[in-house]
Amino acid sequence: MQTAEIGLIGLGVMGSNLALNIAEKGNRIAVFNRTPARTGEFLDEAGDLGANIVGCLTTEEFVAAIRPPRPIIIMIKAGDAVDAQIDALMPHLGNGDIMIDAGNANFRDTMARFDRLKDTGFTFIGMGVSGGEEGARHGPSIMVGGTPDSYARVENVLTSIAAKYEGDPCCAWLGPNGAGHFVKTIHNGIEYADMQMIAEIYGILRDGLEKQAPEIAGIFGGWNRGRLNSYLIEITEKVLQAKDTVTGAAIVDMILDRAGQKGTGKWSVIEAQQMGVPATAIEAAVAARSLSSMKDERVAAEAIFPGGRSRFELPAGLALETELELALFAAKIAAYAQGFAVLSSASRAYGWSLPMPTIARIWRAGCIIRSQFLDEITRAFTANPEAANLIVTPAFSAMVRESLPSLRRVVAAAVTAGLPVPALASALSYFDSYRQARGTANLIQAQRDFFGAHGFERTDGLDRPHGPWGSGA
Amino acid sequence: MQTAEIGLIGLGVMGSNLALNIAEKGNRIAVFNRTPARTGEFLDEAGDLGANIVGCLTTEEFVAAIRPPRPIIIMIKAGDAVDAQIDALMPHLGNGDIMIDAGNANFRDTMARFDRLKDTGFTFIGMGVSGGEEGARHGPSIMVGGTPDSYARVENVLTSIAAKYEGDPCCAWLGPNGAGHFVKTIHNGIEYADMQMIAEIYGILRDGLEKQAPEIAGIFGGWNRGRLNSYLIEITEKVLQAKDTVTGAAIVDMILDRAGQKGTGKWSVIEAQQMGVPATAIEAAVAARSLSSMKDERVAAEAIFPGGRSRFELPAGLALETELELALFAAKIAAYAQGFAVLSSASRAYGWSLPMPTIARIWRAGCIIRSQFLDEITRAFTANPEAANLIVTPAFSAMVRESLPSLRRVVAAAVTAGLPVPALASALSYFDSYRQARGTANLIQAQRDFFGAHGFERTDGLDRPHGPWGSGA
Repeated sequence: MQTAEIGLIGLGVMGSNLALNIAEKGNRIAVFNRTPARTGEFLDEAGDLGANIVGCLTTEEFVAAIRPPRPIIIMIKAGDAVDAQIDALMPHLGNGDIMIDAGNANFRDTMARFDRLKDTGFTFIGMGVSGGEEGARHGPSIMVGGTPDSYARVENVLTSIAAKYEGDPCCAWLGPNGAGHFVKTIHNGIEYADMQMIAEIYGILRDGLEKQAPEIAGIFGGWNRGRLNSYLIEITEKVLQAKDTVTGAAIVDMILDRAGQKGTGKWSVIEAQQMGVPATAIEAAVAARSLSSMKDERVAAEAIFPGGRSRFELPAGLALETELELALFAAKIAAYAQGFAVLSSASRAYGWSLPMPTIARIWRAGCIIRSQFLDEITRAFTANPEAANLIVTPAFSAMVRESLPSLRRVVAAAVTAGLPVPALASALSYFDSYRQARGTANLIQAQRDFFGAHGFERTDGLDRPHGPWGSGA
Repeated sequence: MQTAEIGLIGLGVMGSNLALNIAEKGNRIAVFNRTPARTGEFLDEAGDLGANIVGCLTTEEFVAAIRPPRPIIIMIKAGDAVDAQIDALMPHLGNGDIMIDAGNANFRDTMARFDRLKDTGFTFIGMGVSGGEEGARHGPSIMVGGTPDSYARVENVLTSIAAKYEGDPCCAWLGPNGAGHFVKTIHNGIEYADMQMIAEIYGILRDGLEKQAPEIAGIFGGWNRGRLNSYLIEITEKVLQAKDTVTGAAIVDMILDRAGQKGTGKWSVIEAQQMGVPATAIEAAVAARSLSSMKDERVAAEAIFPGGRSRFELPAGLALETELELALFAAKIAAYAQGFAVLSSASRAYGWSLPMPTIARIWRAGCIIRSQFLDEITRAFTANPEAANLIVTPAFSAMVRESLPSLRRVVAAAVTAGLPVPALASALSYFDSYRQARGTANLIQAQRDFFGAHGFERTDGLDRPHGPWGSGA
C-alpha cells in the first residue's frame, strides 16, 4: 500500500471538502469515518481524485496507511466527541504522531488537550479553518496553533490547500497550543460584527427609506467595487438579488428574521471580558442575534409600542449612498480594531507572541471576512508592529478622519428615526470614548470612594486617595 | 460562657461593621480573626456593644461559644482563602452547622462549595451583602442562597440587621445554592450600568454644555426629588458639591478619570452571554470602565484626532433638564429590564425559581442601587409575575412611552456633538430592537445559509430551508 502524507477522520461536509482539496493538490490522503458506509460513498463522490485517496475501514488500516510521524486531521463535531476520538486513536499511534483538531473548538478545550497530551509522546495541533464548505473545498484560511516542529511536518500540505491572496498562501503557524483556535474565534467575532453592521445598513435602506431588495442589492454591488470590497458585501448583493423559487419574491423577504449562532461570537465576547478589552461592536452583534431569536417577544412588544419609526433623513446636501458607505466603513474599522485589540491582549496574557501582520495576511483570502481591507491592515501592522490600536496607525487614522463624520450623521439619523443600529452606535461610541483624553470616570471613582472607600488617583498625583466625605458618608 | 446566636470570621472593614450591626440589634455574636490582635482592637472599637460580642482567640473557643446548629459568617477576601477557611473550620464543627460565605463570591465558586460540602453533614449558605461599609454597619440588603432550613436558623438575625424599606426588611431567601451570589452579581451589573449612565449625563453637562461641578450638582439634586430619586443620584449631587481640601476646587475635578473594577460587572456580562441574554447596557458600562483605565492610549488618541466635539444642542423649544432627566430615566429602565431578564434566564437555567418581586423588594433599601424605582418594579412584577420583560408591564410600558422620545433626542444630540454615550445609546438600541416585530436578521440568515449552508426558517413556514444559491455558492 502506498503511504499517505496525511490522514483525515470525519467525512462530514467540512471534512469531505477538505479531503478533496488535499487530494486535488497532489497530496496522498488516508480517510476514515466512524460509519464506514460514508467512506465508500465519499470515494464515489471523489471521482478521479480517488487516485490520491486511501479509504480505510478500520483505525488500524488508517494508521498504517500514513507516513510517520503521522499528521491526522480530526474534523468532527467540537466537544466531547473530539476527546473520545483522541482516546480511540492513541493506542494505535506511534511516537511523534500529530493529532490535528480542525473543528471549531473553544481554545480553552484545545489548551486542555495540549496539557493532557503533554507527556504522551504524541503531539497536538489546534487548527482554525475558515471559509465554510466552499473554502474547505477550494482554499480556506488556516490558523495553526502548536509546536513549530509539528507545523513543519504539515506545512507543505496545508499551504498547498490554503486560499491564496496574490499567490501568498493564507495559512500560518500563529503560536503554541490554543493560539490557532483563539485567532479563529476572534475571526468569527469580527465576522459577527461585520454581518450585523451590514444588516443595520440594510435596515436603514429597507425600513427607513422603503427600498426593495433588488435596489438595495444594487447599492451593495456598487460598494463592492469600492473601499468596502469584500466577500461579505459581495454575497450581500447576491442574496438580496436572489428570487424565491416558490413565490418569485426576493428570497430575503421570505426568510424569517431569527438568526442562529453557534458559540464563537459569545466566546469572543467572554474572552474579551475576561481580559478587560472593550469589544462592544462584537457584543452588540451577539446581542442582536439573541434579540432576533426572541421573535415572539418582539412581536408582542411592537403591539405595545406601535409606531415610533419615521423616515431616515440625513442633513440636506449629502449623498445618501456615500454617507452610508463611509458610515459602514468607519464602523468596520472599529470592529476590526476591537478584534485585533483582543488578540493583542490574549497574546500577552497567554505568552503567544501572536504575529498581528501575519494574522491579517492570512485573513485576506479564504475566510468569511476576506477583503482588500485586510491587506491594508497587514500593511498597517507591518509598518507599526507596536501600535496600541489599529485606529491610531497613520493609514487607519486617516481613514477614520475621513469616514467618522458620516458614521456620526448616520447613527444620529437612524436613532432619530427609531431604526436600531446597535453595532454602528457601539462603534461610534468606541471612537468617541477612545479619543477622549479626559473622560467621565472621575465621577465614577468619586461615587465608588463615597460608598465603598475604594479610593482614587488624583490628577495632580498628590497622595490623598479619598474624598472629603469622611467616614460614614 | 453565654452562648452566641451566630459567629463571624474576618474582622476587616465589612466584617467589623456587620458584627457591630448584629450586636447592636441585640444578637449575641462570637467573632474570630486570623490575626488575634485585630480581635482585641475590634472589641475596643465596639465600646458598649462589646457586651453582645464574644471575642475569641482560637477556633475551638469560637466554635464552643456559638449555639448549635452554628451559623458562622465568613467575611474574608473572595477566592481560595474562603476554601482554606472552610477546611480549617470543618474539623471543629458539628452536624448541621452552617458556614455562610458573605463575601463577593462568583456564584460558580459558591455552587462548587455546595457540591463539595454535600455529604459532609455541614450546610452552606452563599449570601450576597450590598451597601458597602455603611450598609454593613447600619442595614445592608441581604440576598440568601441555600436550603430553606438553614435560612430559618439565621432569619431572625439577618432580618434584624437588614435595611428596612417602610419597615419591611431587605433580606430574603432567594433560592438554593448559588442563587444569592448570582443575584448579588447582577445587582452589581445593574449598578455598573446605572453609574455609567449618570456619568454620561454628567459628561453632556460638563463637556457639551460647559457647566461647572456645583451647577451640575444642583441639577442632580433636583432630579433626586423626582422620578430619579435614588441613592446613586443623591451621592452624585454630594460628590459634585464636595470641595478638595488641598486646592479648594471641586473634588471631582481633581480625580483622575481612570475607574477600577472588581469583577462583578464582568461576571454579569459573562453569565448573560452564557445564557444568550442581551445585557448591552451593562456591557457598555463595563467597556467604559476598561476604556477609562486606558488613559495613556486615550491621551495619545486625542492628539491624533483633535477637536471633533461640539456643543450639545437639543431641538429648539425643549427644556434641557427635563429632557436629560427623562433620557436617564428611560435608559435606567432598559438597564434594569436587562438585569431582571438575566435573572429570569438564570432562574430557568439553574432551576432556582427566583422570586422577581422579592428581589426588587429587597433592593429597595440598603444596597447601592436602592431607590423608589425598585418599589415600582416590585409592584410591576407582583402584578405581572409572568411578564416576559419589565418594559412590557403596563406600568413600565407607560413610563417608556413617556421617556423614550427624550432618550432618543438626547442620544442623537450627544452623538452629533461627539460626546460618548455608550450606555445610553445601548439602552436606546435595546428598546428599538426589542420592539421591532420584523428585524433584519433575515439578511444574516441568508448570508449564513449562503456561505455555510446553515439553513433558515421561512416566513410562510414552508419547508425550504435553503436559498436558491445552489451548492458551491
